[in-house]
Amino acid sequence: MQAFIDLAADMADAARRVTLPVAETILACDNKAEGAAFDPVTEADREAERAMRALVEARFPDHGIAGEEMDLRPPRGPYGWSLDPIDGTRAFICGLPGWTTLIALLEQDEPVLGIIDAPRLDERYFGAGGRAWLVAGGIERVLATSGCNVLAEAKLATTDPFLFGGGEAEAFDRLRRAARLTRYGFDAYAYARLAAGRIDLVAESGLKPHDLNALVPVVLGAGGVVGNWRGGADLGQGQLLAAASQDLFDAAVETLGL
Amino acid sequence: MQAFIDLAADMADAARRVTLPVAETILACDNKAEGAAFDPVTEADREAERAMRALVEARFPDHGIAGEEMDLRPPRGPYGWSLDPIDGTRAFICGLPGWTTLIALLEQDEPVLGIIDAPRLDERYFGAGGRAWLVAGGIERVLATSGCNVLAEAKLATTDPFLFGGGEAEAFDRLRRAARLTRYGFDAYAYARLAAGRIDLVAESGLKPHDLNALVPVVLGAGGVVGNWRGGADLGQGQLLAAASQDLFDAAVETLGL
Repeated sequence: MQAFIDLAADMADAARRVTLPVAETILACDNKAEGAAFDPVTEADREAERAMRALVEARFPDHGIAGEEMDLRPPRGPYGWSLDPIDGTRAFICGLPGWTTLIALLEQDEPVLGIIDAPRLDERYFGAGGRAWLVAGGIERVLATSGCNVLAEAKLATTDPFLFGGGEAEAFDRLRRAARLTRYGFDAYAYARLAAGRIDLVAESGLKPHDLNALVPVVLGAGGVVGNWRGGADLGQGQLLAAASQDLFDAAVETLGL
Repeated sequence: MQAFIDLAADMADAARRVTLPVAETILACDNKAEGAAFDPVTEADREAERAMRALVEARFPDHGIAGEEMDLRPPRGPYGWSLDPIDGTRAFICGLPGWTTLIALLEQDEPVLGIIDAPRLDERYFGAGGRAWLVAGGIERVLATSGCNVLAEAKLATTDPFLFGGGEAEAFDRLRRAARLTRYGFDAYAYARLAAGRIDLVAESGLKPHDLNALVPVVLGAGGVVGNWRGGADLGQGQLLAAASQDLFDAAVETLGL
C-alpha cells in the first residue's frame, strides 16, 4: 500500500503544479475572457489529469484510470484510479478557496485509498488502511471525526440546497431543521472537514463516481460512517450521507425519512 | 487618512494574533467541550475586540467605538470605529477558511475606510478614498470588480438562502434563477471576492451595522455599487445588494422586484 500512497501523493503534487498557478492567474486578471474559445479552467482540468495519468502509467502500467476529463483506461488486474482534477469548479472560477483535487485507488471496484487535496489551503487529507491523516504545512496529524452522536448538536454541510430533486429537497429540509447549523458551498472539502472533526454531517446527491470515490476512505479512516440517504451502502445513485458516528448516521437516515 | 489606514492595519494584526491561534487550537482538538461553560469562540471574539479597542484608545482617544461584543464608546468628534472581530462565526466553528475580521471607520456616520481581513487565507482587503487594494503574502495589488453588466452571466453569492423572510425568499429565488451560478456560505468574504473581480453580485439581508460598514468602502473603492434590494442607498434595514457595475445592480433590483 505504501507505494500506492506515495504515488497518490506525487499525483496530487503534479496536479497542484497545474491548478494552483491557474487559480492565481485568474485571480490576477479579470474574467472578461470567459466567453472566449480558450477556457483556462477546462484546460487546467485536462492538463492536471494528464499529469496524474502519466505518473500512473509510468509506475503501474496495469492499473486502470477513470478521470473526469479523458477516456477510461481499462485495468489489467484488480486496481484502478478514479480522478477528479478540480472538484468544486464553481468555487475555482469564483476564486473561493475550497476547491480540491480528488484521487482514489479502487481494488475490485472498492475505494481503498483516497486523497482530498486542497491546494489553496495547503491541506492534503489521506485515507487508507482504516486510518486517515492530514498533511498541512509539512506537518502530519491523525484525523478523527468529532464523534458527535446527537442530530440537534450536529453541524451539517451540503454544497447547494437547490441541487436536490423533489423528494430529496423535502428530506434535506427536514434534516436541515433538525441539525444545529448548516453550511453551504464546500463540495468535497466538507468531507475533509468532517474527517477533521469540525463538521459532523454531510448530505449530498447527484454525485458521480469521481466525486465520491476519494471521500470514502478519508471519512471511514477518520472513524466516520458513509452510505446513501436510506442508510444503505450502495452509492451508485450518487446520493451520499456521511456522519461523524453511527448513531448520528442512523438519526439522519430516520429524519431524512425516504 | 494614512494614519487611520495604518491604525486599521495594526488593529487587524492585533485581531489576527488572537483569532488565528484559536482557529488552529479548535482545529487540533475535537469539539466535545462546546457545551461547557468556556466558549473559546466567544472568548476570542471579545479578546480580539479588546485588543483593537486598546489601539484606538491609545492613538485617537476622541474616536468612538461600536463593536459586536462590548459597550458603545461614544465619539467626541466626527469619527467612530465599527468592529466585528469574527464575522462568519459558523465558518470559524466549522474550521472553514472564509471567516473574517471587519474594521470600519465612519465619519459623520458614513463609512470612509474599511478592512475585510481573512486571517486563515492571509488576505487583507482595504477600501478608502475611492480605491480598494488587497495585501496578500506581503504583496499589494489594486482591486477592481469584474465590470460584469449582464445578469445572466453574473456569479451570485449569498451566505444562507434560508435566512430570508417571506417576500425576500421569493425575490432571491428570482435572482438566483436569473444569474449564471450561485455560491453560498461566505459571509463578508463574498464582498471581498466581488472587489477582486471574481464574484459579480452579492445579496444578503439581516445584516447588522458591524456586518456591513466595512464592506461598503471596499466594494465602492473597487468600482462596485452598493444599496438595498429596492435600489435605494439606505442600508439601515440590513438588506445589502452589491454589484460589479451599475447596470448589473439595476438589473438585479429589477429582478428582485420588491
